[in-house]
Amino acid sequence: MKDILNKQDLENLLDNYDTFMFDCDGVIWRGHEAIEGVKDSLELLRSKNKKLIFVTNNSSTSRKDYTKKFESLGISADKGEIISSAYATATYLADIVKFPKDKKVYIVGGLGIKEEFEEKGINCIFENEFPRNVKEELKHLKPNPEVGAVVFGIDFELNYIKMSKAHINIVHNPDCMFIATNDDRVFPMANYDFPGCGSLLHSLILSTGKKPTIIGKPNHYMLDCIKTEYKDIDLKRTLMIGDNLDTDILFGINGNVDTLAVLTGVAKREDFTGSSAKIVPKYCMKSMGLLSEMLN
Amino acid sequence: MKDILNKQDLENLLDNYDTFMFDCDGVIWRGHEAIEGVKDSLELLRSKNKKLIFVTNNSSTSRKDYTKKFESLGISADKGEIISSAYATATYLADIVKFPKDKKVYIVGGLGIKEEFEEKGINCIFENEFPRNVKEELKHLKPNPEVGAVVFGIDFELNYIKMSKAHINIVHNPDCMFIATNDDRVFPMANYDFPGCGSLLHSLILSTGKKPTIIGKPNHYMLDCIKTEYKDIDLKRTLMIGDNLDTDILFGINGNVDTLAVLTGVAKREDFTGSSAKIVPKYCMKSMGLLSEMLN
Repeated sequence: MKDILNKQDLENLLDNYDTFMFDCDGVIWRGHEAIEGVKDSLELLRSKNKKLIFVTNNSSTSRKDYTKKFESLGISADKGEIISSAYATATYLADIVKFPKDKKVYIVGGLGIKEEFEEKGINCIFENEFPRNVKEELKHLKPNPEVGAVVFGIDFELNYIKMSKAHINIVHNPDCMFIATNDDRVFPMANYDFPGCGSLLHSLILSTGKKPTIIGKPNHYMLDCIKTEYKDIDLKRTLMIGDNLDTDILFGINGNVDTLAVLTGVAKREDFTGSSAKIVPKYCMKSMGLLSEMLN
Repeated sequence: MKDILNKQDLENLLDNYDTFMFDCDGVIWRGHEAIEGVKDSLELLRSKNKKLIFVTNNSSTSRKDYTKKFESLGISADKGEIISSAYATATYLADIVKFPKDKKVYIVGGLGIKEEFEEKGINCIFENEFPRNVKEELKHLKPNPEVGAVVFGIDFELNYIKMSKAHINIVHNPDCMFIATNDDRVFPMANYDFPGCGSLLHSLILSTGKKPTIIGKPNHYMLDCIKTEYKDIDLKRTLMIGDNLDTDILFGINGNVDTLAVLTGVAKREDFTGSSAKIVPKYCMKSMGLLSEMLN
């Protein structure tokens, strides 16, 4: 593991890589605030003609809405530079497994999933009304033969009917796929962490006894999606930058992409420097925000 | 393991036991129908001055409402004969751990829990309105120092705000207890099984990283509650009757209470007769409903 400490280290890094993939929360921002210096650092990378890709497990908003988050922090990012787990799931279904046109996806998750799916021409069932009389409604539920996949993402409008519909379709619908956007344990917000997609997902894993295909980092599907999207990408000259060893850094390692850990989020330096460390990035830098300062 | 096959077997059984504890679903009824002959069999036991106790992991309704379920099937049962996991949880908090009067329990679960808790004088926070703007509400959430315990039961009005409030109180409130009424994987209804309390509970176990105290069968807390309730009960002359090896039969074995498995629910005879069987009841009988027929 090499620390990026000075101008020379950084110049070597810029010589070695053309594409910089970033996790967002804990790297670009924390909650509602951009990390100091990140804006200038990203602009510096752009001025050197580096390709930027923002790779997020967050599936609650579409890429279009995600650009508004960047905007609100004064950072420019194009929709085409963002790969979210919702978008990667849409790509997986439409372009990789060729989800049948006569089938529908039952979504437990945010509007972002629905928007990305519809843009890819995937038929969806997306229900966002809270049910009135749940026990009565349960009596009449049955599997829907039109449903060819259940997709699970973080759902702030989660309710028992949605969980039950997902459950009976997974259990009783022959060949129904079971796909999750990501496996994150918690959903970080500025004030506290809250239950994440992966934690909620485990209810369905236990109740159905089935294992989902999980699209988000650290799994390879996000990289498959990136390779589909940017056909000329050279992964040998690509660097994955993240704050989380279990998702971001492992994602890079799984995909044979070099990795850089920053210390502005989840991971501490001792998490990957000790003798028992299992997931070790190639580089470490205190903060992405130091990049422009260090180079000038 | 002894099969109860004829009048003589049954007469021996009646000689050996004074108290008969029954699981309900799969023993007394299935969905909305009483199991054939059960009504007469229970009346016969009553006529022989046997004590009956109905022991259910279902926490969604109060004991009072549960008697209505018996009534609707033409079976008489007194509120005092029913031990539900909601009632056992109330007893655990009020009588066993002496839950402080100046603290409140945050409930994720059905109205049955709230009713049982209030009857025991436990202060509750029970919210059953679906939230309007979840992401906005999340920004203002914080742990409530009044909350001394989070109790989790099956909740047909589950929503993300409730899960989040439970999560932050368990994680950030010092000494906050984390208690679940039961760990059942699925909730059986007449048409299908749906996600059970134990499956939903695992979301919180994963997100918080904490292990709850689980009150329901097969754990000993339900039996502690029964011993508190019926002070003169002789467990050596008590028989636990159930259809589920993992909950009912293990509950008896854990509590040194003899057990009888019926074949009208989850378990099949080969589940406990093979050489690899781990949970073996003392007796087996095809159906509780055969009891009166066999004896006459």
